[in-house]
Parts: sequence; structure tokens; C-alpha cells
Amino acid sequence: MAGSTLGTVFSVSTWGESHGKGVGVVIDGCPAGLPLTEQDIQIYLNRRKPGQSRFTTPRKEDDTVEILSGVFEGRTTGTPISLMVRNTSQRSKDYSEIASYYRPGHADYTYDCKYGFRDYTGGGRSSGRETIGRVAAGAVAAKILQEMGITITAYTKSIGPVEIDYNRFDLSQMEQNAVNMPDPLAAELAMAHLDVCHAKEDSCGGIVECIIKGVPAGVGEPCFDKLSANLAKAVFSIGAVKGFELGDGFDVAKMHGSANNDPFGMEDGHVKKLSNHSGGTLGGISDGSDILFRAAFKPTPSISREQHTVNKSGEEITVSVKGRHDPIIAPRAVVVVECMAALTVLDLMMVGMTSRLDRMKEFWAKPMMPEK
Amino acid sequence: MAGSTLGTVFSVSTWGESHGKGVGVVIDGCPAGLPLTEQDIQIYLNRRKPGQSRFTTPRKEDDTVEILSGVFEGRTTGTPISLMVRNTSQRSKDYSEIASYYRPGHADYTYDCKYGFRDYTGGGRSSGRETIGRVAAGAVAAKILQEMGITITAYTKSIGPVEIDYNRFDLSQMEQNAVNMPDPLAAELAMAHLDVCHAKEDSCGGIVECIIKGVPAGVGEPCFDKLSANLAKAVFSIGAVKGFELGDGFDVAKMHGSANNDPFGMEDGHVKKLSNHSGGTLGGISDGSDILFRAAFKPTPSISREQHTVNKSGEEITVSVKGRHDPIIAPRAVVVVECMAALTVLDLMMVGMTSRLDRMKEFWAKPMMPEK
Amino acid sequence: MAGSTLGTVFSVSTWGESHGKGVGVVIDGCPAGLPLTEQDIQIYLNRRKPGQSRFTTPRKEDDTVEILSGVFEGRTTGTPISLMVRNTSQRSKDYSEIASYYRPGHADYTYDCKYGFRDYTGGGRSSGRETIGRVAAGAVAAKILQEMGITITAYTKSIGPVEIDYNRFDLSQMEQNAVNMPDPLAAELAMAHLDVCHAKEDSCGGIVECIIKGVPAGVGEPCFDKLSANLAKAVFSIGAVKGFELGDGFDVAKMHGSANNDPFGMEDGHVKKLSNHSGGTLGGISDGSDILFRAAFKPTPSISREQHTVNKSGEEITVSVKGRHDPIIAPRAVVVVECMAALTVLDLMMVGMTSRLDRMKEFWAKPMMPEK
Amino acid sequence: MAGSTLGTVFSVSTWGESHGKGVGVVIDGCPAGLPLTEQDIQIYLNRRKPGQSRFTTPRKEDDTVEILSGVFEGRTTGTPISLMVRNTSQRSKDYSEIASYYRPGHADYTYDCKYGFRDYTGGGRSSGRETIGRVAAGAVAAKILQEMGITITAYTKSIGPVEIDYNRFDLSQMEQNAVNMPDPLAAELAMAHLDVCHAKEDSCGGIVECIIKGVPAGVGEPCFDKLSANLAKAVFSIGAVKGFELGDGFDVAKMHGSANNDPFGMEDGHVKKLSNHSGGTLGGISDGSDILFRAAFKPTPSISREQHTVNKSGEEITVSVKGRHDPIIAPRAVVVVECMAALTVLDLMMVGMTSRLDRMKEFWAKPMMPEK
Repeated sequence: MAGSTLGTVFSVSTWGESHGKGVGVVIDGCPAGLPLTEQDIQIYLNRRKPGQSRFTTPRKEDDTVEILSGVFEGRTTGTPISLMVRNTSQRSKDYSEIASYYRPGHADYTYDCKYGFRDYTGGGRSSGRETIGRVAAGAVAAKILQEMGITITAYTKSIGPVEIDYNRFDLSQMEQNAVNMPDPLAAELAMAHLDVCHAKEDSCGGIVECIIKGVPAGVGEPCFDKLSANLAKAVFSIGAVKGFELGDGFDVAKMHGSANNDPFGMEDGHVKKLSNHSGGTLGGISDGSDILFRAAFKPTPSISREQHTVNKSGEEITVSVKGRHDPIIAPRAVVVVECMAALTVLDLMMVGMTSRLDRMKEFWAKPMMPEK
Repeated sequence: MAGSTLGTVFSVSTWGESHGKGVGVVIDGCPAGLPLTEQDIQIYLNRRKPGQSRFTTPRKEDDTVEILSGVFEGRTTGTPISLMVRNTSQRSKDYSEIASYYRPGHADYTYDCKYGFRDYTGGGRSSGRETIGRVAAGAVAAKILQEMGITITAYTKSIGPVEIDYNRFDLSQMEQNAVNMPDPLAAELAMAHLDVCHAKEDSCGGIVECIIKGVPAGVGEPCFDKLSANLAKAVFSIGAVKGFELGDGFDVAKMHGSANNDPFGMEDGHVKKLSNHSGGTLGGISDGSDILFRAAFKPTPSISREQHTVNKSGEEITVSVKGRHDPIIAPRAVVVVECMAALTVLDLMMVGMTSRLDRMKEFWAKPMMPEK
Repeated sequence: MAGSTLGTVFSVSTWGESHGKGVGVVIDGCPAGLPLTEQDIQIYLNRRKPGQSRFTTPRKEDDTVEILSGVFEGRTTGTPISLMVRNTSQRSKDYSEIASYYRPGHADYTYDCKYGFRDYTGGGRSSGRETIGRVAAGAVAAKILQEMGITITAYTKSIGPVEIDYNRFDLSQMEQNAVNMPDPLAAELAMAHLDVCHAKEDSCGGIVECIIKGVPAGVGEPCFDKLSANLAKAVFSIGAVKGFELGDGFDVAKMHGSANNDPFGMEDGHVKKLSNHSGGTLGGISDGSDILFRAAFKPTPSISREQHTVNKSGEEITVSVKGRHDPIIAPRAVVVVECMAALTVLDLMMVGMTSRLDRMKEFWAKPMMPEK
Repeated sequence: MAGSTLGTVFSVSTWGESHGKGVGVVIDGCPAGLPLTEQDIQIYLNRRKPGQSRFTTPRKEDDTVEILSGVFEGRTTGTPISLMVRNTSQRSKDYSEIASYYRPGHADYTYDCKYGFRDYTGGGRSSGRETIGRVAAGAVAAKILQEMGITITAYTKSIGPVEIDYNRFDLSQMEQNAVNMPDPLAAELAMAHLDVCHAKEDSCGGIVECIIKGVPAGVGEPCFDKLSANLAKAVFSIGAVKGFELGDGFDVAKMHGSANNDPFGMEDGHVKKLSNHSGGTLGGISDGSDILFRAAFKPTPSISREQHTVNKSGEEITVSVKGRHDPIIAPRAVVVVECMAALTVLDLMMVGMTSRLDRMKEFWAKPMMPEK
């Protein structure tokens, strides 16, 4: 399975470059019968759209999704769903200079090494626009999960030195500010910090946190396709992610077992963990608690400030990456994180239907039949 | 591809439980022509063997590997390599009590949920012994990488509050102490800390760091099978890992772009990054620098101290997990981390041979021929 | 990997239905550096286009391909290639009657069973239009193979009782007739036979033969991804194929070993089989001879003649599938067969680059570098 | 996924060579809860064992299977099942001569090309012993299918010119004769024919037919993982298979649509095909009828008669493959065919559980829970 395809059963293949004709995704393995409209997907795409605040690139794109296949009379048919977003503002710039050198912090040099040359317009395939396909597919996955009572919510946890305060935590506030922080005061401080970064022609990093509610115990395929491991991969495959942690994450390295272990108790006749240091998995399988993880995003590598680099002729030069850049990646990545989580959880829930013979016999004892 | 299989071309399937007949792995896709003996693999297995110091479980196992297939007259044949280690001390204990309840921090409950029941002897498949298959396969991968000039070295970076000091960093010291720390003073302090943990019937967490040298630029398959993403998955699939970071990791969240970007320069006519905040990848593809990552390991969940849990009858009870347990997981996981890294890098280097048409044409222009 | 995705490294995911917005394919894993234009692909699509003779459905479609991604300045970039053909004549018919019953020989009933309902317009996903994605991807694969000296040629071997005579075999004649037969006399007879079928409101079956020249010895991945096995799957995945044979095929069942074994000899210092009963593989690996296989295509299931079936209310009824149908599938499938063969051979040649350590070391000893 | 691994969810990796330490298989993805003993598997292995009649090689092997993992207290645990058969008679022969030349009809030359060298003892990986892993895994799959009311039966349909007569068809007779023919008279004639082949130091081919009963409608994953296509691949991956056909197979090429289409009717309130020319699939998905296919096996390539070939020094020579060889492959392959069919059907039934959202919601509405 080549590198732009993810998932065992709910399998997605994304395609497209920043300044090509468009970007998109094919979902192979989506179950039949899901009511699906372009609007279901558009809502997610709108959340990642640029040009929405003074902290995002002013590139104007409609990012309008078109469902090309796999939906008939408003429902998914079980056959591949092809989703496309046409690029509309791709010819706005002269990239000949960027073509000649390697931008620090970008994939210019490594793409050139791997493929011999690169699409240098807007970052080509390594552009953030590549995530449109992920988000479009993730929107479908999230809708299926929602029908099964599972919700996924990500938000900006920190921007540079500014972190949300859980005492003020209020998810409804998140969409009220340009930085997707569920804490209005932190959002204010963060925006002030970003203004400073911008003034200094610089950028800064941040952390996105994500919580998944409603996943039943028993999801995950040891010993490699653990829910934890597949989440780590899915999230780490987003450009700019440099760290991932589940539950207590790196803090566990300083903890004692007696504090880190989550005791079990009973609640309404059901087993329930009394704390959630593990972040919702044990042995890589969901334990019925909320799944909680964080991802660290590096600062936007494109900065107006002068930087040292080399050009394709092997000369050391000084460059300043022109244009208006987002000074921060994390807030716009919030919806991407949610979508990668949705793709991961759904795929493992689908595979997980085959774990037990009793359930499989039960399933096939009622054979597949045409709808009435 | 089911959960116990990893890799696109160099594909490994591990099997075995703690107290079954043995543990092992099948490597499907190993290139032909590698000189390989059981000793090559045994060296790696010996590094993870229990009973080697006062900080590891006293279970005595020879962990002797047998090559069952795929090697002929001392060289790999290109066909599947089957490796097996027989369990020898598996009948030493009565597990009926553990069978009746869910140990906090272990996978007992989640395995029961997913599969309906579990092999409760020694943790079954979720035992640390499962990593023997990974290490055996990883030893083969590491040997291939070594023939191409690539070396992988992991070590314990921290144990509880004790961290190595890079001013005293000395890899040769690592094997001189029981905690795999490349800093003799830190090792002393760490061992003292572990003695305290043990006295308190408790355990503690730690961090393993890993450095990969010699990977050429151009390895990794965007946008999902990035070198970074596949490393994250491979490492996160090790039991007890709760955090993973590459290069500056979570620190990037507080950094500015101007500090985090690695400038490019020229050295001996070659492009070279002048710093390595990125940890050796850009856009998920190796950039020719050292690859550097860290993994956080939670404390050993088995502790003698009393804990609260429930039994299978749904009663809340207090338990104390009997026996002598390692008070720390990280040091013994060092070799496992190395092996997961080796499997990941090798698989992507193999897939990466197909990235460019010029190189592929060159390859097949000299057809495959029998050796003289 | 879900059902509409094929290939380990050169991986294709097709999408689209007969009467949806369009059909297409994403190629993930195409090597970088192939000169590729829409015209390269269009040539192949034109060969499968309907409305070209009195033996094909008169549906008029331009079937114009658009390259949406993966090509930059005329060359493939190594990132996913998205290819799309818009459907243009999809609203020409009332399908409400067909929606109500199960056409004999079609997938109506099985799709309803599997997915609960179906896209009943023009056969939906089970339509022959689904092969457009295969042909578009196959055209890319065939171009790569051609650059390595490998050519694939399929043709109609028989139509009903009319078979080509190898004494008159002339490939240049194949495109001169409407039935893709490399024997002008057989073509005449076959067309007369088809006219009779048409007059009787019936259809007939046929055989497509395919020859692949230039594949070096050593391609194929035992013991499951044998070149023979993967060709069988790829060809059998084409709708209407009911039989596949390689080399002497079913005739081997009546042969003796002394006649069926191909003796080896020397030619210009190279090993060469002196006959080719095996059809170009031994042990599932190419042996350097021509690869020769055949596929049997069933008669077009849509016929105007009355047939017995049931409707969705469970009533037995008599139907006549309205409209002008191709009385034969085989000739239009010729290009599809070629394309499935190209996809299979290319994928295995790419995977095959990893078979030997000596070749792999040689490859990486010359690292991936940017083009000059 | 490398070449010795098959299956999306019920995934098997076989290993082992004819004269190595043993042969075996790892099943990754077997559902938990299947009662499984070594005897369940041994029954299948005994059916393929050599040395059972005058028509099979006199090599004596016990072929005793050992379950190494994945079964606890008599039931599968859902974790990988490792199965091994030790080779016991592997040192009986001097292979130095065979090492020096390429046997016609064997994989000697192609293995040498692909891998550079080969395990020349007994055919190494290309030996028929490789099928032991397939049969062991297939026995597990068949047992699961049987629990769901699905049975698979293969038998020898023809040997050289001798074909069974369906008027005398009697499955109970099949195990009464050495050639697995369900027709005692044909068996007699076939054995006489084999005696003649043997006297002439020659071998002959044959056809195996297989019927699968009880597969519900709706199994198969278009457009590539069709039930038909995956069966074709699975069966064609068996060494010596040169042809595969489903239902009417190659005969369809001469049929008219009116004869080839299977009309639908009603039986006991259910849709039922009134004939079965299609062999049990429509559009690559099972249609509820019996699945019926045939495979053509070439004659045993090892014959005592003199043959022309070349040696590794490039000299043309005449050889006679020493030893007592089976004069026919087909009868011993009967059980292998059954097993490949079982692996294919089961894998697609497992994947097929994810086809419909209504069924998936129903499944997860009753969460995975520990057994009482």
C-alpha cells in the first residue's frame, strides 16, 4: 500500500497539490446507507479554510467540495466515494525564486532528493492544502461515528507560552475566537502573542488537544494496529507535528505506578476506570474511557525574517520568504486532528467487528438481504 | 492486514504469548543474500533478556532463537524467515487468582472486552515477551541497515526524576550499568531511585532516546507513510509507551520559527542542515541528518502495593500483584525501540527504491541474473 | 485494503458509476519523472469508447480524461495521480423499471444483498464504465513498461464459434476491424455471426488473448503474489470473465510432462527456454519468455429477448432488457485486459527491486539526489 | 504486503522449505472463541501427506502439526495462531547434481534469477511442501466456515484423458481410491493410465473441481477483491495450476446470452437462481448458489525420462531427474484447493461484515463485552 493511502477497511487515498487543479480523496470501504450531502463535508472544510482571520493566510479559496461518486439518492452506496475540491486561486504568484532554493523548515530539499525534482508552486504536495482530502474523508468518518454516539473534539491547548486554563475551559467559546481556544482569556493572550510574532516577522508553535467520547471498550488491534499506535501515526502524518502523547503522555516518565495506574470500579453494574491517566486505552485497546491525546505543532516555517540557506547551484544565500504567512499552524490544524482521529477510530471499529467468532456467527446468521 | 503484521515490503508477523509454547516472528520480504546466523539475532535477544540485574524480573529464560526457514548455507534466500524462541519457564506460577480480576494498568479488561476472554497466564499476548518477535526481526533489519552504513542506538535518557547529563554523555558506559544509561553518574542516581521505588512496593517511568545515523536523504512516503509517522506508530505500538517526539518534540510548541527552522549550508559540496531541530526529517522524509526521537514509558503497572479494582463477578476488591516485578520498563525497552526503528527505516528504504523512474530504469536495465 | 484498490506499491483506487458525475482513479505510488500528458491516456480510453461500430452500444461519450494531480511541468512528481472522466450522457434514460427487478446475468441482485440497495442507473458501479479508471491507470503503467522495453498486446481470439487462424495472424489487421481480431477473415466471419446474434435478440461470448513481451526473468513474488496468480486475479476482476489460463492452460490437463516441460537451451550466451508451454512463468516468476494468457468472456447479459426473473416484490415476471446492447463484450475488453496486465507486471517489477540485498546495496550506495 | 502473506483480515503468512527445519504458517486475524485442537488440523494435513499410495512420492513424513500460539484452554484467543510442522526426512538425498543445472518445468532458473541463488534441496520454497502451511491455515478457516454452515468439497475431475462421469458421481467414493475421484470406474481407468505414464517414465496432468455450499449471497468486494477474482488468485497461487474457471468457464465463450444468463425465480419466499451457469457469483459477489470452479494442473515436471537443459556453466546437457516421483499432481492438490477456497471465502466474509451501516450500527449497539 503506497504512502498516500491509509486504513485497512475504511481506506482513504488523498491526492492533489497546492497549485494544481485541485485536491481530493477517494474513500474505499465506506459502509452503504449513510445519508451524505456535500454540506456534511463542507462544514468541516469551512473550519480549515484560510482567510478567516488576521492569523491565517489571506489566500481566498472557496474550497467547495463536490461528491463525484459513491452516493446515490442521498445515501452512500458502499462503493468508493470520490471527493474533489477545485483549486481556484492557484496562479496568483511567481514561484521562480522559491524554485531556485531550499526554504528552511520546508520539505523542498527532501522532495528534491526523493523524487529528483519537485512541484515548487506553493509547496506542491507538501502544502497544507493536502489536508483537504483528509478533512473531507474525516468528515464522512466523523458522521458515521456520530451515528454510533461517538464524538471527537479538538482544540488549541497552547500557543507559544500561552496555555488554556482548565478552570475556564468552555468548549462553546472555541469557535468565538480566531485561535480555537476553549478559554476566552487565553485566546486573548495568545492573539496578543501572535501579533508580536508577526511584528517580529516570526512565527510560533502550539499544542492541539483532542478528546474522543463514546468509544466502546474493545477497539484496537494489537500488537501493531493498537488504537494508540494508529492514532500516533495518523496524527504524526500531519505536517508540522513533532510530538504526540496519549493520556498523561510524557509526564508518565516521572510518575510512580501507584499514581499512574487507573483503578477499576463499578458504576451502574458496569466496569469503569476511576481515573484516566492512560488516556482511554489499555494494551492499545480502548477501555471505555474518554480517549485523550495531544499533538505538538512546530512554528510555521515560512517567515519573512531573513534566513540562511543554499540554492540549487550550491551557493549559500540569505532569503526571506515573501508573502503574508500564518504565524501559527496549530489552530487551523484542529479540524485536521479531529479528522485523523475519526479515520483511525472508524477503521479500527470496522476491523474490530471480526474479533470474535460468536459475534461473527450472530452477524451472518442473519444474512445480508436487500432492503424492503 | 491484520494487527500483528507490520510493514509494506519488509513485513513482519509476530506471534506468541507469555506462557504458551513460545514466541516468534515470520519475516516476509527480507532480501536474499544476507549472511545470517542465529548468533546475529541472539545478541539482540540477550539484550532484552530478563534476570540480568536486580531491576529486572528474576524469571530465567534462555530465550534461545531458532531459525526455522529462509536461510540456506548461511545466507537469507529471499523467502520467509521464521524465527522461534521456545518458552521454558512458563509453568512456574498459579494464575487462577489473576484470572479472576482486572489488574489496574494492564490489558486484562480490554482483552476480555475485545475477545470475550483472555489468556491470563503471565499477560498472554499483552506480555512484554511479545516483544521477542519484534527484537528477532529487528535484529535482521538492523544487520541489513548496518551493511548500508546505518546504525541505530537507543539508551535510557531518564528514570523518574533522574536524567542523563549530555556533558557526561558516553555511549560506551551504557552497557556497564543495569539501566542502560550513557552517563555513569545518572545511572548511579537512577539505581538508587529504583531501590527506593522497590522499597515502597512501587515502580517508576522513564524515557528512552534513540539516534539513527547514516540514513540518506529521501526516505519516507508522504503523506501517510512518512518516516516520522511510521516511526511514531512503530514505537507507540510498544506496550507502555505514552509519548513520542521527534527532534525538539514538544518543545517546538514554545519555539519561534526563526529558532526552530534548521538553516541549510554546504559542506564538502553537499547540502547539509546546520542544526537539527527537526530530528532528521522534513516533510516526513529523511533529510540526511541524524534521526533523533524519544519515547516515554509508563511505570511498570505490576506493583506489590495494594490497589483498588474489580473482579469478574463485578465486586470491588483490593489486590496486590504478587511476585518480584521490574520496577522500571524503560531500560529493557531500549533494544525494542532500536528494533522498531530498524524495521521502520528498512521498510521505507525498500519501498523508496521505487520512487523515481530514472533509478528504476537503471535498476532493470541490468536485469536480475543468477550469481556466478 | 478495501476492494476497489489494487497493488502493493503501484496502487490504484478506482471510483465512479455509470450514471454518476464521472469515473476515475487515483494512482498512488507512480514513480517520479515519467513524461505524461492527457493524450497518453486518451489513446487508451479511445480504444474502449462505446459507439465506435455497429457492435457497440450507441451511447455517445467523449470520455475525455483530465489529469487532476501528480503531474508538474509535464512529468509525474511521484505523488498521487488523480485522473477523471466526466460522464456526459448519463441522463438519457428512465431506469425506474429496471430498478424494480433483477436482470438475469447482472449484479443487480447481489449488490442489493450486499449493500441493501443499489444505484440502478446503468448498472451503477457494476457497469462496464467502471473499467475507465482501470484503463486510465493502465495507460500510465503501460507507458512506464514501454520505457523499459516491455509491450503488452491483447486481441480477440474468438467470438462464439469463430476463432482466429494463427496462419493468418497479423496484428496490424486488428485495428482495421470492429472486433479487434488479428485475422481479417475471422473478423468477417465473426461480424456475420454477431449480426445473427443481434437478429435473434441475443448475444455471444468470446476469448481475449494477451501477449507480454520483454519482461525480464525474475518478476513475481511467491508464494501468493506470483506473477501468474496476480495476473489471474487482475484479469478475473474484470466483469464477465469466467475463465483464465496461462500458456497451455487447460490443455495441460491432458498433456504428459515430457511434452509440457520446456527444455532450456543457450542463445547468445543466455539461458533461453526452447519452447513456451508454461506461458512465461516458472514457479510464478517470469522466466524471460513471452507471457501469454487468455480470458473467457461471457456473452453480454443484457439481451432484448424475453427472460424470466423476479421483481423486488417477489413476483416472478418476464422481462426484456430494452435498448441497443453490444452483442459481445470481448472486443471492447481487449484494452482493459492489456491494462490489467500492465498494472500487474509493473507493480511486481517495483516490488521486485527489493528482492536482493546486493542490488539494494548497489541502489542506495548511490543515494537519491536532486536532479541537476 | 510481501508475497507470502495473503488476506486482508484473516491474514496468513506461510514459511518453510522442503528440506529446511520445517514448514508452517502464522494466522493473524483469526476470530476468538473457536474450539481448536491439533487434531482438527492434522486431519487436513493427513489428506495431503505423501507416501499414501503407489502414485505419490514414497517420502515418509509424519507431518505432525504443533499449535505454538493463539489457542488457550482449547479455544482461539483472537491473537496470532502459529502452526508448525517439522521436517523429518530431509537429509535423505544428495542434491549436488541438481544444484548444478536447471530442471525443466521447475522454478530452479527463475529463483536463481530473482534471488541470485536458490535452496536447491528438494525444491526449497518452490516445493509442494510449501502447501503444508496453506493447508494448516485452511483447516482453521474451513472449521470456522463449517460452524456457519459452509462446506467446501474438491475432487479430481480428470486425469489425462480420463474424466469422471457425473451420472456415476458419488462423493463417498472419493476417499476410497488413490486419485480422489468421486467415480469408481473413472478412478480405475485413471490409475491404469498413471501406470502407463510411470512405465514410460512420464507424468500427466489433471483437473480439480471444487464446490462450495452454503455461502450466503453478498460476499465479495468489487471491483478488485471480487469473490471470483480472489478465488482465481488463491487457486492460481498453487504451484502447477495453469487454468482456472468459474461456473461454465471457458464454455461461455461459445454460448449465447440467452443460454448463459441464469433466470431468477422464487423458492419458499426467497430469490433463487433457476440455473447456475455463473458458478455462484454475479458481479463478483456470491449470489447464494453453489460456488463451482475448476483448476487445471500441469503434469509433474520431475520425470525420469531424459530431458534437455543447461547447467550453471552455460552448457547444454541431458538430464534425467532421479528418484520416484508422483506421476500426477492433481489428486494430492485436492485438499490444497479446498483450503485456498476456505481462506478466500472466510476473509471476504469477515471484510463483508463492514459493508452496511445498518448492520454495523446494530453490531456496535451491543458492545463487545467479557464473556460471563
